[in-house]
Amino acid sequence: MAAGETSGNDVLARLAAVVASRRGGNPDQSYVARLFSKGPDAILKKIGEEATETVMAAKDGDGSRIVAEMADLWFHCLLALEAHGLKPQDVLDELARREGLSGLEEFARRKAGQREKEGL
Amino acid sequence: MAAGETSGNDVLARLAAVVASRRGGNPDQSYVARLFSKGPDAILKKIGEEATETVMAAKDGDGSRIVAEMADLWFHCLLALEAHGLKPQDVLDELARREGLSGLEEFARRKAGQREKEGL
Amino acid sequence: MAAGETSGNDVLARLAAVVASRRGGNPDQSYVARLFSKGPDAILKKIGEEATETVMAAKDGDGSRIVAEMADLWFHCLLALEAHGLKPQDVLDELARREGLSGLEEFARRKAGQREKEGL
Amino acid sequence: MAAGETSGNDVLARLAAVVASRRGGNPDQSYVARLFSKGPDAILKKIGEEATETVMAAKDGDGSRIVAEMADLWFHCLLALEAHGLKPQDVLDELARREGLSGLEEFARRKAGQREKEGL
Repeated sequence: MAAGETSGNDVLARLAAVVASRRGGNPDQSYVARLFSKGPDAILKKIGEEATETVMAAKDGDGSRIVAEMADLWFHCLLALEAHGLKPQDVLDELARREGLSGLEEFARRKAGQREKEGL
Repeated sequence: MAAGETSGNDVLARLAAVVASRRGGNPDQSYVARLFSKGPDAILKKIGEEATETVMAAKDGDGSRIVAEMADLWFHCLLALEAHGLKPQDVLDELARREGLSGLEEFARRKAGQREKEGL
Repeated sequence: MAAGETSGNDVLARLAAVVASRRGGNPDQSYVARLFSKGPDAILKKIGEEATETVMAAKDGDGSRIVAEMADLWFHCLLALEAHGLKPQDVLDELARREGLSGLEEFARRKAGQREKEGL
Repeated sequence: MAAGETSGNDVLARLAAVVASRRGGNPDQSYVARLFSKGPDAILKKIGEEATETVMAAKDGDGSRIVAEMADLWFHCLLALEAHGLKPQDVLDELARREGLSGLEEFARRKAGQREKEGL
């Protein structure tokens, strides 16, 4: 497995870290801080809204809007995860477990274990 | 970047490949084939449904149900992407681009370019 | 106001009465009883699902499906109201109050008061 | 049937008339005009959003918020109906038809027929 193949989870993990770092920030300067300052329902409302927008973009068959709306949906999912002390990796692990990708998952965990030993 | 850090996207990419491979399969044997055989609205309906279930799990503050419902939501997002000839990487690229993770993204694209040259 | 003009609320009120009467019934014989027996989340999940289907029908510009899906949506709203000891009239009163139809609302309340006095 | 019993549909029908009258108005002065000026997706997005808020209010068991959010949901349904040349009565008729309230419906139609003859 080449490193480049696997850049995506890095996006989710890095984005989750950015979200966590902005969570307690200045609501006037950060969208994430603003949404967290409004309380948990504000984030969940956005999940409903962005899911609807994803569906509408798909009905229009508009690929770039599907991508943009789904990015919004997943982004607000990351906020909901952060609000509950969860990580995108938890969702990815669940997906891997369920879909019979357990060999992959075990590989990932072994690597994760190595990282911990190596202090990364 | 160590390979282990980045196992998650691999989950999404592999899952997308599994979805693509099952798409035209036997609806009696595969959930994915069954949903695709019902037409595109069946997938989109599930996105609305799973988004609602994610919201309800979050209202209950039930971490393992949040993870399970969000896995369902993301899984059906993968089906919608497949239905439109898109990849989870498209969404991850959009997230990276938007959130000022462009350095990372450029890195990923360079790696992707290398992979193509290397025939991987 | 002619009686015929106002048949619709009667539909909502009668339907709410039907829902209330079926609520504790045999889950094998009644859809309403079945949904209530599954717990409150089953009803709420349907609200998310039917809202999504209403949106999809509207995207298709298919009038009869819009009507059918919105009927499903409103029907499950009646179930949610019943689950919380509320009535469709509560929603209609709120709509009337908000939309500057307060004259109408006052009229309705006076009539409601009369009905109570008359034992109807 | 006493007139007062049936005030609710009058609310939906009157509200639909208000919506129709405001539809082409000044977007700076009317919420309805503003939403219509943004195009049909803006209305549909609100249906997804308000459905989610209804679900959240129900999860909280907060009766007055359930009523308020459901009023928002039904209000935006009226806008979607107007956008497609439909009436709330169409949805109520479908509900009546489906739920075995056909006797009532026939009564309503007869009354409606009378109204037309009477020029009301």
